[in-house]
Amino acid sequence: MKANVYVTLKQEVLDPQGDAVRRALGALGFDDVKRVRVGKLIEIDLEGADEAAAKEELASMCEKLLANPVIEDFRFELEK
Amino acid sequence: MKANVYVTLKQEVLDPQGDAVRRALGALGFDDVKRVRVGKLIEIDLEGADEAAAKEELASMCEKLLANPVIEDFRFELEK
Repeated sequence: MKANVYVTLKQEVLDPQGDAVRRALGALGFDDVKRVRVGKLIEIDLEGADEAAAKEELASMCEKLLANPVIEDFRFELEK
Repeated sequence: MKANVYVTLKQEVLDPQGDAVRRALGALGFDDVKRVRVGKLIEIDLEGADEAAAKEELASMCEKLLANPVIEDFRFELEK
């Protein structure tokens, strides 16, 4: 089973990397970019075919390792 | 208009960061994780409402700045 995990900074947390990307895009002529936030996409291949178990496991992985719950949010989706 | 850009390493490119995450997950007891790849999720707020123009602009941003086409693939989606 394949899963995509998305880890993003919470809205209220500053994102200097995103700001740098926004400025760099502006310098390249992309003037209509108002805001950029940079997060992580983590692709995970899991053994086993039980969707409910996989979801529980993924939430646990995010809480324990993949995301920092103080400053980051996470969400994930399974690809059959 | 909001866009999500996904930048991932090409399949044939080694991903030591992903391997490190896989090992760390294994050490935490998540033994059924076969493979992990770490990529970037870039959230972009764009001015303007023309979907076709936004898509063209996003592809150009990816080619010029957001992705390294030698080792990375990109895809993006627009939210409404």
